[in-house]
Amino acid sequence: MKIAINTGGGDAPGLNAAIRAATLAALKRGWEVYGIKNGYGSIYTDEPFIKMDAETVHGITMQGGTILGTANRGNPFEMPHQKEDGTWTTKDVSDRLVKTFKEYDIDALIAIGGDGSMNIASKLIKKGINIVGVPKTIDNDIYGCDVTLGFDTAIDIATEAIDRITTTAESHHRLMVVEVMGRYAGWIALYAGIASSADVVLIPEIPFSYDSIEEKIKEREANGRHYTMIVVAEGAKAQDGEVVTKGKSVGQQVQLGGIADRIADELSERTGKESRTVVLGHLQRGGSPSTYDRLISLRFGAAAIRCVQEHDYNKLVVLQDNQLKRVPITSIEGKMKSVSLDSDTVQTARDIGVCLGD
Amino acid sequence: MKIAINTGGGDAPGLNAAIRAATLAALKRGWEVYGIKNGYGSIYTDEPFIKMDAETVHGITMQGGTILGTANRGNPFEMPHQKEDGTWTTKDVSDRLVKTFKEYDIDALIAIGGDGSMNIASKLIKKGINIVGVPKTIDNDIYGCDVTLGFDTAIDIATEAIDRITTTAESHHRLMVVEVMGRYAGWIALYAGIASSADVVLIPEIPFSYDSIEEKIKEREANGRHYTMIVVAEGAKAQDGEVVTKGKSVGQQVQLGGIADRIADELSERTGKESRTVVLGHLQRGGSPSTYDRLISLRFGAAAIRCVQEHDYNKLVVLQDNQLKRVPITSIEGKMKSVSLDSDTVQTARDIGVCLGD
Amino acid sequence: MKIAINTGGGDAPGLNAAIRAATLAALKRGWEVYGIKNGYGSIYTDEPFIKMDAETVHGITMQGGTILGTANRGNPFEMPHQKEDGTWTTKDVSDRLVKTFKEYDIDALIAIGGDGSMNIASKLIKKGINIVGVPKTIDNDIYGCDVTLGFDTAIDIATEAIDRITTTAESHHRLMVVEVMGRYAGWIALYAGIASSADVVLIPEIPFSYDSIEEKIKEREANGRHYTMIVVAEGAKAQDGEVVTKGKSVGQQVQLGGIADRIADELSERTGKESRTVVLGHLQRGGSPSTYDRLISLRFGAAAIRCVQEHDYNKLVVLQDNQLKRVPITSIEGKMKSVSLDSDTVQTARDIGVCLGD
Amino acid sequence: MKIAINTGGGDAPGLNAAIRAATLAALKRGWEVYGIKNGYGSIYTDEPFIKMDAETVHGITMQGGTILGTANRGNPFEMPHQKEDGTWTTKDVSDRLVKTFKEYDIDALIAIGGDGSMNIASKLIKKGINIVGVPKTIDNDIYGCDVTLGFDTAIDIATEAIDRITTTAESHHRLMVVEVMGRYAGWIALYAGIASSADVVLIPEIPFSYDSIEEKIKEREANGRHYTMIVVAEGAKAQDGEVVTKGKSVGQQVQLGGIADRIADELSERTGKESRTVVLGHLQRGGSPSTYDRLISLRFGAAAIRCVQEHDYNKLVVLQDNQLKRVPITSIEGKMKSVSLDSDTVQTARDIGVCLGD
Repeated sequence: MKIAINTGGGDAPGLNAAIRAATLAALKRGWEVYGIKNGYGSIYTDEPFIKMDAETVHGITMQGGTILGTANRGNPFEMPHQKEDGTWTTKDVSDRLVKTFKEYDIDALIAIGGDGSMNIASKLIKKGINIVGVPKTIDNDIYGCDVTLGFDTAIDIATEAIDRITTTAESHHRLMVVEVMGRYAGWIALYAGIASSADVVLIPEIPFSYDSIEEKIKEREANGRHYTMIVVAEGAKAQDGEVVTKGKSVGQQVQLGGIADRIADELSERTGKESRTVVLGHLQRGGSPSTYDRLISLRFGAAAIRCVQEHDYNKLVVLQDNQLKRVPITSIEGKMKSVSLDSDTVQTARDIGVCLGD
Repeated sequence: MKIAINTGGGDAPGLNAAIRAATLAALKRGWEVYGIKNGYGSIYTDEPFIKMDAETVHGITMQGGTILGTANRGNPFEMPHQKEDGTWTTKDVSDRLVKTFKEYDIDALIAIGGDGSMNIASKLIKKGINIVGVPKTIDNDIYGCDVTLGFDTAIDIATEAIDRITTTAESHHRLMVVEVMGRYAGWIALYAGIASSADVVLIPEIPFSYDSIEEKIKEREANGRHYTMIVVAEGAKAQDGEVVTKGKSVGQQVQLGGIADRIADELSERTGKESRTVVLGHLQRGGSPSTYDRLISLRFGAAAIRCVQEHDYNKLVVLQDNQLKRVPITSIEGKMKSVSLDSDTVQTARDIGVCLGD
Repeated sequence: MKIAINTGGGDAPGLNAAIRAATLAALKRGWEVYGIKNGYGSIYTDEPFIKMDAETVHGITMQGGTILGTANRGNPFEMPHQKEDGTWTTKDVSDRLVKTFKEYDIDALIAIGGDGSMNIASKLIKKGINIVGVPKTIDNDIYGCDVTLGFDTAIDIATEAIDRITTTAESHHRLMVVEVMGRYAGWIALYAGIASSADVVLIPEIPFSYDSIEEKIKEREANGRHYTMIVVAEGAKAQDGEVVTKGKSVGQQVQLGGIADRIADELSERTGKESRTVVLGHLQRGGSPSTYDRLISLRFGAAAIRCVQEHDYNKLVVLQDNQLKRVPITSIEGKMKSVSLDSDTVQTARDIGVCLGD
Repeated sequence: MKIAINTGGGDAPGLNAAIRAATLAALKRGWEVYGIKNGYGSIYTDEPFIKMDAETVHGITMQGGTILGTANRGNPFEMPHQKEDGTWTTKDVSDRLVKTFKEYDIDALIAIGGDGSMNIASKLIKKGINIVGVPKTIDNDIYGCDVTLGFDTAIDIATEAIDRITTTAESHHRLMVVEVMGRYAGWIALYAGIASSADVVLIPEIPFSYDSIEEKIKEREANGRHYTMIVVAEGAKAQDGEVVTKGKSVGQQVQLGGIADRIADELSERTGKESRTVVLGHLQRGGSPSTYDRLISLRFGAAAIRCVQEHDYNKLVVLQDNQLKRVPITSIEGKMKSVSLDSDTVQTARDIGVCLGD
């Protein structure tokens, strides 16, 4: 057997652990392992796939990022391509990718990634590639998977950051707004917000009311708490339909942004209190994985190889009900795992007095 | 409604978070909350139960230990008692405890603890006390509960410690044996061992063979790895029936001990390599809880109050299949949750080449 | 003897340790200790000064922020004052402050703060108040003091953050620009930049050239390093005289900002590489102090009391040449400690290949 | 120019940073750099010295241990040697080492190590080798050097450990005795003890009295503090001349040990309180260096190369009075830097109520 491993999309803590487990588990079975460097665009390079051995993956469980690299040029169906006039377009190079797999005689591909990577995987499956997916995203919003690789580290980092900022908020009697990742789902904001004893947590699943937050601040002032910690997911929206408009171009991508500043300004205006904002941004996705992320990533990586061994292809390895299971990769397409408003975690937030903005 | 909260047995990170959530959730419902200071033995003091409010639990989520204290004098059915001749015996003071509950007009007791605390709870239930249990132990071995309060922090600390010691092992070409907690179950050893890329992990569930470990060390030497990291649960046993005998009296308790030293000596003898041991001991149970432990503890604490609200007494709040559920406290009596040898985590260990001693 | 303690200006990790040491050292001598809550503006409140005892300072060494609070209304010579028409002005309330000191019979004031606080102290000295200063600023730029309270924690946090972000930069082949504090001096950027193996470090003391940075990036690309980590002090300036102009009003203060974004945009433009920015901001000043900051803060706090005991007033306690010394508070006025360009640390940066932008 | 780098004795956090800085600073000057693998005993191997380049030292600043390895077979004047009858002796192989230096045409040796390594260096100097020393020991007891590579990380780890254990002590009303490194000097115990708010700190420089500690415990009980944290350096001794006798053979070395247990037993006996012990041991020397240790190690490493460049040989690079200086390696022989009992740090300990056992 020969397998290839690809890491796609944004990096997340635990990618290297998953790569290590998949590699070691495959080598143990006497298989050959290839790594796809910097995404599928590598098919244009001299050495698209790299032979991997035990030495390649030695000591990487605790390393952040991905030793394989992860590129923007990662979608073989829409590969960026510079035209003769210098402008950019995209083209479908999936056939060439399939040909490369054949040249290397790859029996199966371990695709470690998020929604985007799984969509690409779905299309490659249709072209005859055998794929096993491993769910990765710090946002924890992949459908059908209780927990994704990278999430635990993200909430660890966010919690520690909010802890730190809280001491400043309290000392200076300020409102502090901390913006965390989560465009579509509020997992990081909710979990880190609760864990760090934040006073207000705003998530995309619950459009928020400024009146509600203002009331919370005033209630706190009345109780002698002259500061308020507000944690906001980047994708949170105000009830009046206010949308995040201050997108900012950095490099070739458009980023969301500005929600923290807007909330801080509005609340300062309403309460007369000083406010400050901190945007955690890329802090949440880099660096050494937490213990849990190392474990779940190693478990995912090893499980993917067992999946291949049983020729049970085109499945995504997931954690469901505290057990590793497999679901069809196609089954998650177009879906997303939002925070359930009647989950016990949301109830916990309300029970301990966190204002969720509604 | 009036509730009382007790924390029993060894301290664990997350106790304070559970206390805070239970207190705030109860106050939110307009209830009164009392804390039992230093265990049930407090009934002999002037102020057995202490009134708690929002101020009492402010900022304690991130604090280790328990603000209520946790005493050895915690079992009302076998309370230590000094006789007139100065020697010690125990006596059953449970009726006095029940009377104290009546005097304070307590409707329900939130008992946060492990096996021992739940056994006591079972007996108190028979005497008419309404109890809701919250599962606490860094050992993670409470039956019927996928995860217990304190476990995540314990594996975090152990993993970081093993990481640190690994660099010394590698630099000095040594065998290093790190002893972690786990008298009856190997959860900490297994999880921290895998997460820290340990080479050998020895747990109570798998009696180990020195030959197997020796072989692993020699295989590593042959591959140019002149060091080996061995993680051992304090309750691990060698296959030949070797038992932990070097118990040592500290204060009034007998402690297990010596397994790490014995393994190190034996392996040095067999391989001619230098060895060192580190016993993590109390490092694993103190200090600020991890993000996950804060969360699960807050969730347990709030869930216990919802349980009381529904008068669904004599239940233990547990996490099963990724959901908060309730099981009868009596249902866990005399049982223990061991590491399942066909779990995917054990398979992962084998797949990535960890020697489990068998 | 009766002493009062004040913490002024922005909070910094270690303030509480200094408060604790001063309080305990004073109590040990049989003195009375008062804390000034939320700055000198407290003279308008019912209880301007608060009696402190051992209990007040128990367990606070490891806590971030300041238990005394630190207010914007901190300058008694320019105290914000709302006029009848609702607009704000400032007025000199220093005589009332002096009167309050007299009412409380305060023999000496321990003033913990930075430049601003020491300027205020200088003026209060002229009005007859006995003062001993303790140097606090995360920026480490107080003249005459080798190290200030708060600096070590700031570089710890910045270093860990840059570590994390580096793994993302490497995985994604990006330029990453991390903005750290330091309006006038580059201590945090230089120290954290070197410690985290950053490739480019830009500090106010060395106006930078974009050409120089571009060259560094291209040299790295040529060596197969497809990412570059750039650490920039908020007060760094480009050689062509470019000034930080995108000041942004938050609450009542104007903040510097935008230097990281500007550098990222310019370098993306020049190199065609993707870039991202992270502004650490308030992350650097909050939270539990590092071991070193706890120590130096405790040492400063205790030394201040020995200073009072000897009636050696109007001195700032400093660390010079690895020894605690005392300098006249007036001696630091109008001065600042910049990074010396011929220090061995700057030489180290150059020796290990860090581009300093010149 | 050609230089060689050696790391000797126990590993310490920062060794790799020093190696990296020395290597990069030498390469920058166009020199060749060789690493001596696993100590001077490597002269018996096929490849005694290893060529080093920028790639060799990439990313190692944050890694614990030493990439060069550090061996017990490190003293060329007393190299372990197995006789024909199987027993071991030592012999002087220094001439062969000198010959190897000549074969490789080495101009100067950077010797990174502690007392032992500097004694060896002194002897090699007499045989004509040009040496520049870098001071390394987590114990911080090298004479003439305000701070040594590895010390800051050791006190960081010890402080965090004591913090954690304190919460358990407080919850359980126990005496906790934490043993830290320091056979001859009490730097780690004193610094970590003060930083972690320990109640009792016992160091080799101050023979301790059990009566004094007992009194402290009783004073605390009287004040409602039913726990006491005791930090003891492994080399601390009781006043009555009690000596550490329970040495224990592990591998081929005799270790000190037992002081913590002895203190715990004695104090439990005297006070009737439960006690527990934790021996930090190898936890203190491994793992990623602190920010400060990275910095000082990089500074030492680069400074050593500048020393070589000026042909200023046979010097030890040290930090004195906050400046990098150079002292003759021979000047530190037979000396040790103890804690000065009239230092401000000791005064601080007393001022904040730490019992030093006298």
